[in-house]
Amino acid sequence: MSSPDFKEKLSKRVDYIENILGRFLPEETGNAKTLEEAMNYSVTAGGKRLRPMLVMEAYKMFAGVPEDEINVPEYVCAAMAAIECLHNYSLVHDDLPAMDNDEYRRGRLTTWKVYGDAMGVLAGDGLLNYAFEILFKAADDAAENDPEMAARIVKAGRIFSEKAGFRGMIGGQCADLEAEGKGKNVTDSELIFIHEHKTACLIEAALMMGAVLGGADRNGIRTMEECGHNVGIAFQIQDDYLDVYGDFSSLGKSIGSDAANGKVTYVTLCGPEKSLQQVATLSSNAEENLKSIGKENKFLEELIMSLIKRNK
Amino acid sequence: MSSPDFKEKLSKRVDYIENILGRFLPEETGNAKTLEEAMNYSVTAGGKRLRPMLVMEAYKMFAGVPEDEINVPEYVCAAMAAIECLHNYSLVHDDLPAMDNDEYRRGRLTTWKVYGDAMGVLAGDGLLNYAFEILFKAADDAAENDPEMAARIVKAGRIFSEKAGFRGMIGGQCADLEAEGKGKNVTDSELIFIHEHKTACLIEAALMMGAVLGGADRNGIRTMEECGHNVGIAFQIQDDYLDVYGDFSSLGKSIGSDAANGKVTYVTLCGPEKSLQQVATLSSNAEENLKSIGKENKFLEELIMSLIKRNK
Repeated sequence: MSSPDFKEKLSKRVDYIENILGRFLPEETGNAKTLEEAMNYSVTAGGKRLRPMLVMEAYKMFAGVPEDEINVPEYVCAAMAAIECLHNYSLVHDDLPAMDNDEYRRGRLTTWKVYGDAMGVLAGDGLLNYAFEILFKAADDAAENDPEMAARIVKAGRIFSEKAGFRGMIGGQCADLEAEGKGKNVTDSELIFIHEHKTACLIEAALMMGAVLGGADRNGIRTMEECGHNVGIAFQIQDDYLDVYGDFSSLGKSIGSDAANGKVTYVTLCGPEKSLQQVATLSSNAEENLKSIGKENKFLEELIMSLIKRNK
Repeated sequence: MSSPDFKEKLSKRVDYIENILGRFLPEETGNAKTLEEAMNYSVTAGGKRLRPMLVMEAYKMFAGVPEDEINVPEYVCAAMAAIECLHNYSLVHDDLPAMDNDEYRRGRLTTWKVYGDAMGVLAGDGLLNYAFEILFKAADDAAENDPEMAARIVKAGRIFSEKAGFRGMIGGQCADLEAEGKGKNVTDSELIFIHEHKTACLIEAALMMGAVLGGADRNGIRTMEECGHNVGIAFQIQDDYLDVYGDFSSLGKSIGSDAANGKVTYVTLCGPEKSLQQVATLSSNAEENLKSIGKENKFLEELIMSLIKRNK
């Protein structure tokens, strides 16, 4: 379904984002060197760079930047670096012995396995704090010469902090934690709450931040929120489906690990057929959301569809 | 030294701050109820409310609000709630088994002891995230009708996030963690780095945020930073001194616990006489800083001196 050069376009953007992260990440020097190393260890471990890419492409769509133009203004780079730092803090803390007790991620030892669990706590705190520091700095730098842009950055920061916070992602992590012990007694609505908050909130935040920075009005922002919601839930159901029915060789991780952990997922709760139907519905809703904006960014459309229709 | 009604003035302000916190803290409802309870459990455990009080009084000094006026505008309340949330996140994470493994604080079980260590991690994350969420919301609310005030809130947020982050408080925690194993091999400069970052940075942030919100210029902000630095270091040395030479009955905690933990402090490193001298020098410097502003807030002066000259 995707255009023949989709992979090339994707990899160009990943390179651009790696470059931005390199500029924003802490120097490893002085008395807090170990902390800075631990923060960077997590962020430089790779990953799809999906969230910053969504910020960037949503920005381009609303700002009317041609799809093939890769460079975006510095305040957009700031939002991109911020959301990747925040995403990584959530992984670092998730992996802690007190949480999931994971020793490997992306084929490398997890941050706490390398730096100890105390430094794992601090590295996560450092990344979370830094995400907001980056945005406050960007807003303050803009305030003097471009108050309109400063106001957009502040609104992006507000949305971002709400979606990441106790009413957003962290709230989802709390519900997930409490659901773990419950097994089959988890209800549909609890499970949807977890997906909506733990996974979808940050996808929503990415698309909304890009929209706000690109000059979207209230309506445009709300549509991107809905789009992010549809994509986020579809992404999660797909992830759960692949865990049960995926192909090990293309997935690169062991199949059935959720089931082995006694984890209730949308797939175990509703069965494979209803799950695939739900993914199809959500993905067509997301497509509708994007079309209704009336501004085109083919790459963003392809990116979103590739997330939902992936087999790995 | 303090005026006869200092205690009464202090307690009026504490009441006012408790009220603000009550307004800002999460409602305990819905699927993330446990998280919200854990966040509130820490913040409502009491404490001196020193940092929000410094924000408030520094604001009043620069804004020319009479000393006896207790009410401050909503955006100042936001900064006050934010810094108290952030201070409490640092305590919640410090107490974790992975960090200091403390079971009691302020005479109550620590957050992780009540809610488990996974929820302890999340509650700290929730409070840290919420601190910035409060400030972004305040700035965004102000942006439409009062861009000048929005710019001040953004500058306050920038200072706050820098002082709390990897170049600030978290950096100090990293250095503290690494110093623990080293015992007597910790150098003067490492110890000063820890005090400057782990303790002083947030005192500086409090005074600087109040100053910025009250309309201070660059020079005023820098002077308040120096003042906070002097107060913060003096406060920490005093704390270490009281740990060795304090009176149990007035201190309310066991004496000599630092020494028992093999912790190197300014007092163990430089001896009691040089320590007391240093506290005197720093406190007179802090007084000079305040005087040089040329605006009076007697209560702020008394508050700062009470911190340094306390015996508990």
